Amino acid sequence: MNSLRRYLPILDWGSRYDRRALSNDMISAVIVTIMLIPQSLAYALLAGLPPEAGIYASIAPIVLYAIFGTSRALAVGPVAVVSLLTASAIGQVAEAGTAGYAVAALTLAFLSGGFLVLLGVFRLGFLANFLSHPVIAGFITASGILIATSQLRHILGVDGHGHTLPQMLSSIIGNLGQINWATVLIGAGATAFLFWVRNNLKPLLNRLGLPPLLADILAKAGPVAAVVATTLVVWGFDLVDRGVKIVGEVPQSLPPLTLPGVSPDLIGALLVPAILISIIGFVESISVAQTLAAKKRQTIDPNQELIGLGAANLGAAFTGGFPVTGGFSRSVVNFDAGSETPAAGIYTAIGLAIAALFLTPLVYFLPKATLAATIIVAVLSLVDLSILKKTWGYSRDDFLAVLSTIVLTLGMGVEIGVASGVVISILLHLYKTSRPHVAEVGLVPGSEHFRNINRHDVATDPSLLSLRVDESLYFINARFLQDLIQSRVTEGSDICHVVLMFSAVNEVDYSALESLEAINLRLKEMGVGFHLSEVKGPVMDRLRASHLIDDLNGTVFLSQYDAIAALTPEVAAIRG
Amino acid sequence: MNSLRRYLPILDWGSRYDRRALSNDMISAVIVTIMLIPQSLAYALLAGLPPEAGIYASIAPIVLYAIFGTSRALAVGPVAVVSLLTASAIGQVAEAGTAGYAVAALTLAFLSGGFLVLLGVFRLGFLANFLSHPVIAGFITASGILIATSQLRHILGVDGHGHTLPQMLSSIIGNLGQINWATVLIGAGATAFLFWVRNNLKPLLNRLGLPPLLADILAKAGPVAAVVATTLVVWGFDLVDRGVKIVGEVPQSLPPLTLPGVSPDLIGALLVPAILISIIGFVESISVAQTLAAKKRQTIDPNQELIGLGAANLGAAFTGGFPVTGGFSRSVVNFDAGSETPAAGIYTAIGLAIAALFLTPLVYFLPKATLAATIIVAVLSLVDLSILKKTWGYSRDDFLAVLSTIVLTLGMGVEIGVASGVVISILLHLYKTSRPHVAEVGLVPGSEHFRNINRHDVATDPSLLSLRVDESLYFINARFLQDLIQSRVTEGSDICHVVLMFSAVNEVDYSALESLEAINLRLKEMGVGFHLSEVKGPVMDRLRASHLIDDLNGTVFLSQYDAIAALTPEVAAIRG
Repeated sequence: MNSLRRYLPILDWGSRYDRRALSNDMISAVIVTIMLIPQSLAYALLAGLPPEAGIYASIAPIVLYAIFGTSRALAVGPVAVVSLLTASAIGQVAEAGTAGYAVAALTLAFLSGGFLVLLGVFRLGFLANFLSHPVIAGFITASGILIATSQLRHILGVDGHGHTLPQMLSSIIGNLGQINWATVLIGAGATAFLFWVRNNLKPLLNRLGLPPLLADILAKAGPVAAVVATTLVVWGFDLVDRGVKIVGEVPQSLPPLTLPGVSPDLIGALLVPAILISIIGFVESISVAQTLAAKKRQTIDPNQELIGLGAANLGAAFTGGFPVTGGFSRSVVNFDAGSETPAAGIYTAIGLAIAALFLTPLVYFLPKATLAATIIVAVLSLVDLSILKKTWGYSRDDFLAVLSTIVLTLGMGVEIGVASGVVISILLHLYKTSRPHVAEVGLVPGSEHFRNINRHDVATDPSLLSLRVDESLYFINARFLQDLIQSRVTEGSDICHVVLMFSAVNEVDYSALESLEAINLRLKEMGVGFHLSEVKGPVMDRLRASHLIDDLNGTVFLSQYDAIAALTPEVAAIRG
Repeated sequence: MNSLRRYLPILDWGSRYDRRALSNDMISAVIVTIMLIPQSLAYALLAGLPPEAGIYASIAPIVLYAIFGTSRALAVGPVAVVSLLTASAIGQVAEAGTAGYAVAALTLAFLSGGFLVLLGVFRLGFLANFLSHPVIAGFITASGILIATSQLRHILGVDGHGHTLPQMLSSIIGNLGQINWATVLIGAGATAFLFWVRNNLKPLLNRLGLPPLLADILAKAGPVAAVVATTLVVWGFDLVDRGVKIVGEVPQSLPPLTLPGVSPDLIGALLVPAILISIIGFVESISVAQTLAAKKRQTIDPNQELIGLGAANLGAAFTGGFPVTGGFSRSVVNFDAGSETPAAGIYTAIGLAIAALFLTPLVYFLPKATLAATIIVAVLSLVDLSILKKTWGYSRDDFLAVLSTIVLTLGMGVEIGVASGVVISILLHLYKTSRPHVAEVGLVPGSEHFRNINRHDVATDPSLLSLRVDESLYFINARFLQDLIQSRVTEGSDICHVVLMFSAVNEVDYSALESLEAINLRLKEMGVGFHLSEVKGPVMDRLRASHLIDDLNGTVFLSQYDAIAALTPEVAAIRG
């Protein structure tokens, strides 16, 4: 029963569901539904799909996440970054607007869902750690810039394409002759209005004396107001004849049953993008879920989250959707509106199903420029270049990782950008560990503590070289230590003993073992003792399985102080 | 002048060259030349090139290495593993025996030489460390098996092809009908003879009372004896008419002036193989050079070695050769024969030039089976499966790296094999560091030393949680520590202070900094003190650049003992 509850969290909270939770969940569901209708349409547009795909992607996935997910507040559905990744991935295998394009989107959701479920079942959630904070921050910022730029063409009413910033800009600039002023008026007006709503409406309503909850709901309804107003304008002034592009006919229907593609070529082409989308979507979602859970002292199980998100994506694949994940802004709205359980998600899904059945004719005259405006306003909040300044102040390596992720994402596209970010972070880390910091240490007077002779006023003995190696020893730096000791011991002829202080050595792999054996042999030939101190349990267990300890031309000491006491008798005499 | 000497080591040893060095160098040059003639022909055969390419690849490269290299004993020229890599790389862009194939070999040498020189000039020799000892050992063993198998067809006189073990074996088995018994007789006979020479001749000659040096030279001349004998047999018994394949006409000429290809397609196709060949050749060469230098207390400059090997390969590219590197067996012979300076290499080159001009007609009737036999006997000494047993006993990760390198090299070819080995080693290392060992520590009675409470009998205090984190904190494990502390502190309600002992933390990157800030905030909210101890200089410098230290809900202590003394007053009272 417990393991069933682990895999089906709904059994846990469902059994304790009460009236209070119901009313709180219902209220937040209404607010989220209102917010989600224009967002769903907009992100479908961003992904290059028909508008209904956005609504379908917000129904089954939400219900499935409510069953399998562990977050009480996470709102799942199409989000900006994942929609951009979707457009980039399927743009490479099919033409936007074709049947093949829609199938590719389903296939991508299917592969992504399957991969997430596999990661969850095999408890491989730690793989998300390969994305460092600087890489994520850089990637999200660059994606925000790319997304906003990609929507400019809808605001201007021109054609445009491309998956990198230079491509997008040159394509828009090349098509500036097509500019449609009626569209610009609507698009720029909606953008300005939404920015105003976002920054000024809530304070204004509060000042006017409205109750905070109502002020909040009204402020959240800003996009809906923009949708209604611009739709009426287009309909009333016959702007379609003036060339304003509209959403047009959206089928009145519940989500259809769909099947992802099974052709090996398609799957082969989408596999790597699907893995990327899964991991990025998971990282985005889990950080939102953990932030919100921490505020209520709830816990999130990352591996069960993988299963929840995987189920949501599989649901999207079979109901006409596209890849989804937990969205930041809607989850915060959901949380702030007081949702108590994932049931709020189920009610939201019901709200969207009603919208899909009855409200779609109302968006016929909705201009695409309005949707573009909602996307631009939403994603510009993702753009945060301060991470460049913060990492520059802290560490040049982290700065380099952020900068290259941003530059490569803008210049080479989202997939190359994020993949390069991961590879660059790993290479920088390996490079750092390839040249470890090694400190010569001496005794801090009046203590048994040893510190760097260059930073502290410590006592040393010329016959004894004490080196603290500040890195695990493994293949990347195995030769380094060998070269270092060779150069130190041939330089100073007084040295009778070398003690390696292993307090910071967390691993000794086979390559490093061979290096230590070579050092031992070399020092033995020169008549110099070779000792280790403060070797940690797991490292010692490993070394005992080799010949090094048996052949060691010296002793393994529990502490560096014991080593000094044994090897330099005068120290022992002083301290008793 | 000093920097000129660094880049041109010949100026250094050349200025002190004397009569004694001349005579020692001459003797070893004669021995190496005798050894090199059949080897050069054989490795050209292995690379799929005409026999003269092997001789050309042993002339200019040797001279250039003598000028730029730092090893006194290294003998440069075609070697088995690099020849195999060459065959594999250019087999993908051209048909063996065509003009395009020879140009591809020159281009590969050119790219490899250029890459090596660049690495040397930018002092990037540490890149070779990416190849761990287990990966190198596994790769060399698998290459030995592949090379020996690839030569079986010459011994059997059948056609054969393929770059993986299954391909080679199935191709040979499929062509067993073509078997030529005269060839088998020569090939098997030469192989048996060479194995006997190698294992038994030198002891026999010593027992017969020959002077050791002469016995050594005679034993080294075994391949030459096999060459002479089988050539005479083929010529005397007219075995060419019986289908025995021979070396045939080899032009009598000094190395020609050649130009590598410049087509972008060719360069694009060969770039990655060239990088692989460069790094593998460098690793092989530098380990030989360092082993031999250490015996005479000489030093090797790895970055200058890159320039020396790069120059040698550029030389090969412009004089009809193919990729070369420092060979193990010939370098040992050179060293044992008493060579004192790289001038020995120059005399060897002169010997080979004489051979190219005057001796090539003598190898017309040399059977290819004899060359195959010399290759097989040479490479089987590379095969050493004991590395599997050694690493199994020491660490499963290293074992996995060896095993997968061997299996993938045999099953998927040399390039995929070695590349996978590198990637697998890095991923295993990252995986290990993603779940660091964290020990709860207590005071070792009668000392100021702290050890794991589960391994040692130590004193602890229930109000104080002391954790020693046995890993650098960086993006791969940033979240791990956060989860760990959260679970520990909510479990035990008695805890008033958490002290993280940073003795093994060698780095805190930006992702980990954010985690530490989150831990600090969480503990502050819970009213629990958060302290650090034994933070190393470089890590502390970094942390001071952030807000963490200012905002810390606690203190940074010099040593863990100081932390305990300050936070648990009774300890301070006891120890004074």
